[in-house]
Amino acid sequence: MANPLVGIIMGSDSDLTIMNNAALILDEFNIEYEITIVSAHRTPHRMFDYAANARDRGIRVIIAGAGGAAHLPGMVAAISILPVIGVPIKSSNSIDGWDSVLSILQMPNGVPVATVALNGAKNAGILAAEMLAIAYPAITEKLKAHKQFLNDEVMIKIENLKESGEM
Amino acid sequence: MANPLVGIIMGSDSDLTIMNNAALILDEFNIEYEITIVSAHRTPHRMFDYAANARDRGIRVIIAGAGGAAHLPGMVAAISILPVIGVPIKSSNSIDGWDSVLSILQMPNGVPVATVALNGAKNAGILAAEMLAIAYPAITEKLKAHKQFLNDEVMIKIENLKESGEM
Amino acid sequence: MANPLVGIIMGSDSDLTIMNNAALILDEFNIEYEITIVSAHRTPHRMFDYAANARDRGIRVIIAGAGGAAHLPGMVAAISILPVIGVPIKSSNSIDGWDSVLSILQMPNGVPVATVALNGAKNAGILAAEMLAIAYPAITEKLKAHKQFLNDEVMIKIENLKESGEM
Amino acid sequence: MANPLVGIIMGSDSDLTIMNNAALILDEFNIEYEITIVSAHRTPHRMFDYAANARDRGIRVIIAGAGGAAHLPGMVAAISILPVIGVPIKSSNSIDGWDSVLSILQMPNGVPVATVALNGAKNAGILAAEMLAIAYPAITEKLKAHKQFLNDEVMIKIENLKESGEM
Amino acid sequence: MANPLVGIIMGSDSDLTIMNNAALILDEFNIEYEITIVSAHRTPHRMFDYAANARDRGIRVIIAGAGGAAHLPGMVAAISILPVIGVPIKSSNSIDGWDSVLSILQMPNGVPVATVALNGAKNAGILAAEMLAIAYPAITEKLKAHKQFLNDEVMIKIENLKESGEM
Amino acid sequence: MANPLVGIIMGSDSDLTIMNNAALILDEFNIEYEITIVSAHRTPHRMFDYAANARDRGIRVIIAGAGGAAHLPGMVAAISILPVIGVPIKSSNSIDGWDSVLSILQMPNGVPVATVALNGAKNAGILAAEMLAIAYPAITEKLKAHKQFLNDEVMIKIENLKESGEM
Amino acid sequence: MANPLVGIIMGSDSDLTIMNNAALILDEFNIEYEITIVSAHRTPHRMFDYAANARDRGIRVIIAGAGGAAHLPGMVAAISILPVIGVPIKSSNSIDGWDSVLSILQMPNGVPVATVALNGAKNAGILAAEMLAIAYPAITEKLKAHKQFLNDEVMIKIENLKESGEM
Amino acid sequence: MANPLVGIIMGSDSDLTIMNNAALILDEFNIEYEITIVSAHRTPHRMFDYAANARDRGIRVIIAGAGGAAHLPGMVAAISILPVIGVPIKSSNSIDGWDSVLSILQMPNGVPVATVALNGAKNAGILAAEMLAIAYPAITEKLKAHKQFLNDEVMIKIENLKESGEM
Repeated sequence: MANPLVGIIMGSDSDLTIMNNAALILDEFNIEYEITIVSAHRTPHRMFDYAANARDRGIRVIIAGAGGAAHLPGMVAAISILPVIGVPIKSSNSIDGWDSVLSILQMPNGVPVATVALNGAKNAGILAAEMLAIAYPAITEKLKAHKQFLNDEVMIKIENLKESGEM
Repeated sequence: MANPLVGIIMGSDSDLTIMNNAALILDEFNIEYEITIVSAHRTPHRMFDYAANARDRGIRVIIAGAGGAAHLPGMVAAISILPVIGVPIKSSNSIDGWDSVLSILQMPNGVPVATVALNGAKNAGILAAEMLAIAYPAITEKLKAHKQFLNDEVMIKIENLKESGEM
Repeated sequence: MANPLVGIIMGSDSDLTIMNNAALILDEFNIEYEITIVSAHRTPHRMFDYAANARDRGIRVIIAGAGGAAHLPGMVAAISILPVIGVPIKSSNSIDGWDSVLSILQMPNGVPVATVALNGAKNAGILAAEMLAIAYPAITEKLKAHKQFLNDEVMIKIENLKESGEM
Repeated sequence: MANPLVGIIMGSDSDLTIMNNAALILDEFNIEYEITIVSAHRTPHRMFDYAANARDRGIRVIIAGAGGAAHLPGMVAAISILPVIGVPIKSSNSIDGWDSVLSILQMPNGVPVATVALNGAKNAGILAAEMLAIAYPAITEKLKAHKQFLNDEVMIKIENLKESGEM
Repeated sequence: MANPLVGIIMGSDSDLTIMNNAALILDEFNIEYEITIVSAHRTPHRMFDYAANARDRGIRVIIAGAGGAAHLPGMVAAISILPVIGVPIKSSNSIDGWDSVLSILQMPNGVPVATVALNGAKNAGILAAEMLAIAYPAITEKLKAHKQFLNDEVMIKIENLKESGEM
Repeated sequence: MANPLVGIIMGSDSDLTIMNNAALILDEFNIEYEITIVSAHRTPHRMFDYAANARDRGIRVIIAGAGGAAHLPGMVAAISILPVIGVPIKSSNSIDGWDSVLSILQMPNGVPVATVALNGAKNAGILAAEMLAIAYPAITEKLKAHKQFLNDEVMIKIENLKESGEM
Repeated sequence: MANPLVGIIMGSDSDLTIMNNAALILDEFNIEYEITIVSAHRTPHRMFDYAANARDRGIRVIIAGAGGAAHLPGMVAAISILPVIGVPIKSSNSIDGWDSVLSILQMPNGVPVATVALNGAKNAGILAAEMLAIAYPAITEKLKAHKQFLNDEVMIKIENLKESGEM
Repeated sequence: MANPLVGIIMGSDSDLTIMNNAALILDEFNIEYEITIVSAHRTPHRMFDYAANARDRGIRVIIAGAGGAAHLPGMVAAISILPVIGVPIKSSNSIDGWDSVLSILQMPNGVPVATVALNGAKNAGILAAEMLAIAYPAITEKLKAHKQFLNDEVMIKIENLKESGEM
């Protein structure tokens, strides 16, 4: 992989199944990314270095997923001036996901995290593409096509359900 | 105002006190913006037009604030391919803000909203700046300065509290 | 199907199993309906057209089901003057259904949605019948019979449990 | 008052300030209504009689407001076949309104209550008008006018804020 | 069954598995009871009659279980002066049991319901025994024995776990 | 005070304003009671003694109010075989009363607490009277009169509001 | 086992699977412990004795796990001056764990419980080690090694995922 | 101040009123402490240094208070092997304190934070004393005296209320 624009990081390898959805949609949009584990709590130095150096390495958007007391997105946002997209993950000991959502969303004034829905890694990927499209016009066309695809997908489902008699 | 890059919209004039904080920080960053009321529920056609035309008018990021069953950010994101930052607002009849937060955050796959903290309009402005900095390098320096300012502000407070004997 | 009085719409085909319960009870009441997918987020233009034209096509009540950040019922109510019954659906990534409930229920002044229980599509159908009975007296008798049926069903269960010795 | 079509009832006189908003909007729509106190818990016989006889007295829609363990809307819906609109009220000892909302909304299959937002009595009035408009076409025009008024009100506010320099 | 002192009622036959635990403990205490279905929403007349006549039939405590918008315990308490023990049941479409708990617990001043834990039918039976022991001293000994049994059961488990090496 | 049948205890003197409502209603019912502070956390030995000896002193029902992590009602119920009525109190640092409610209500199998509404001390008094009426028939008449009073109070309010033109 | 420094107690044998994780990590740290069942509700005298005597027996930290209305940690902290670590357990009838968390965490001023995450018994063990390390320097080295191990574990996982092509 | 054993840190000067209660109780216990502002989000480098060096400077327990998405306690615990006591603070834009509580409490396996009640800084101080008493026996006597004081304070209040006739 050369010259990634998006850094996808997650607090634990157990988040990989969810976070991979961010990678898949970036693949669709032909946007280069890197994906790795960075734990705020178990590898704090690695987290610090990742956040401090991401922009100089060419990263333009960081997608950070974490569960429970999810400090990764907010700490990366505290260190880097890149836009950070936070993905709350409903991990096994989470209290129904509320802990992940609130500890990513409720950042204090001065340090925003762009939070998406619980387990919403795919949307994190799309949001990253929307941000990059400001600078990279080629992505704009892909976003338009994706919006059209979402619409078409619904219309095809309607047709299929009509034909099958379920509607 | 000429050539706004950020569109700040809100569902009601009662949201203006909160949403103005987005405008103030964009002023600090010298980023042009427009600010107006667009109600998904009371002016749905205006909302549709706003979302459909914002990009062609030069807008690059939309900040949308709303309270209660807050549909404005999500509906604008459904129509436009611009990144949409959602600001949940704790309005008077809100159930402690949970309704605003959940109806903005929990968007379905395909249509992300970059949600910030309850009443977090200032952070919405900073996040917009971070997104724009990908394409407009001048903003990068201002973001670095702002991060330094946040740090310095804390250090000065520590000094003052020491001097006053409160710490 | 000719001349439907009720329009049953839902945000996703994954809602069909739940929403079909509205159709089944309308079948019982001999009330004509149509059922289809209308996504506020993926087919916003279709949603707009559906809401704007439903009344002229003869629809008198709209039943709209959606999950997560559920904007469909509220947006249809914003556009149409028909009564809109909202069915919050506990979809797979919903936070225990709270997001669906609050984003349908907590509509601002001026734009009501008649919200029923989580996954309560059957009750949405009955509520539609109750509304239509104001204008269509024939439905009144069916509603009375249904209330009697609910009562009788309990009485029969009591008898059966007595006979089986479980009570 | 002659021939009321809407019965507005509430569990306590402390709910009157909120529930009066339903009356005010029905006044605007020229829809006859009656308004009184019917407590499911303190006047259960009166509640039973009210629900059993409302339809024969000409009532076509019941609006019932209650707080805390709010049983009035659901019990009236259990007895009458009229559509019942439930208004959850955030009373003084309510747990932030959650008790009122859930005990009105979460009705079992067979007995719907059309629930509106917490303290949403005005919307209850509009919803009653929407239901009645199915049978009384004159109300339709008033609903259209009200929707236009909501839109105009926003547009006027925008003008005023522009003139005052706040936008 | 002759001369029951406790009436165990529930809103639906689907509550029987849970509510049977109240019956089992009353069996242990040799307290006569009756058990049946009384639905506030589907058999409101039956509910009214049950509540109005229970005391004259010799019932001294009513245990009422219900799920969702659980109105049965509160409505029975509104009509009868007997102590009513409410058992919130986590039924299939309940929002994690919160609706059942709050619509039973949060009764207004004047009409108490003695609420026990979610699905806590066994404790409802013990609580009924404690109430009856005020008038029936024989039950007192059984309650003392049951407290001792609870203690002994723990002590035996400790021994077993020690022997098995798990502690 | 001679021969109290009800023991009203509370975890802190700050609960006195609320808990006094239990005393006032028992005064109305001419039921003897005692009222004092017993803190499970600050006076655990006193709590133990109180619970262990209350029945021998003639107490027949214990009403225990507490806020936050409210252990008093449950611990007293663990030690005594008397029925214990728990009053969750919304104290100053409570999380909206949820902590008080859940730590009183959710008792394990074997050890019930008859929980009433948040701050519902008046209802605790009425519930105590209902329990005592099983053994003390004189209280029965007072409970009937109180139910009639609740009804009359509503009817008088209706008359007053009619006369004042507010209804 | 000789001379345990940590007492691990739990309210029920059903908590053993979770609480065993505290024992396992103390084994790793070579810290002596005892583990047993002490139920605040079913064995209140045993609980009292345990708390009153633990310090004299040489125990220096108590880890107490409990579910539902979890009074064990708080009651032990009320009696003993030892630091008490509370482990909220998501037991079968718990309301999603909220009851356990709040009834352990929200202790009144004067009686702290060191609460860890829901089901977080492993962290309770580590926290006990951190406390003991103040007095027992040998533990300090083990804590440093454990922190290094957490870091290394992540780094190894990253290597493995890279090699397997999943990253 | 010489040789502090406890480091009291907080994320913002607005937390000082609350966090000062930790200092006051440590004063009572004659335990040396330092108190300052360390923001994880605004001064991440300072936070890193503070956590990395506290133990070498002689600090034995860290008390960290923060509100909203409260990352300070967890991040310090990630870096230091000292026991970290977390104080969730109900700050102005917090969602009723839930965000603070959950983002401090729900730490992942390996990195515990000893969480106390919302705004429970006083208890954080007592908990720190309990931890230190393991190594510093002099503190043990002060803890015993404090427990006695809590008990005496209740007993005096009872006397006063008796004398004033309020009990």
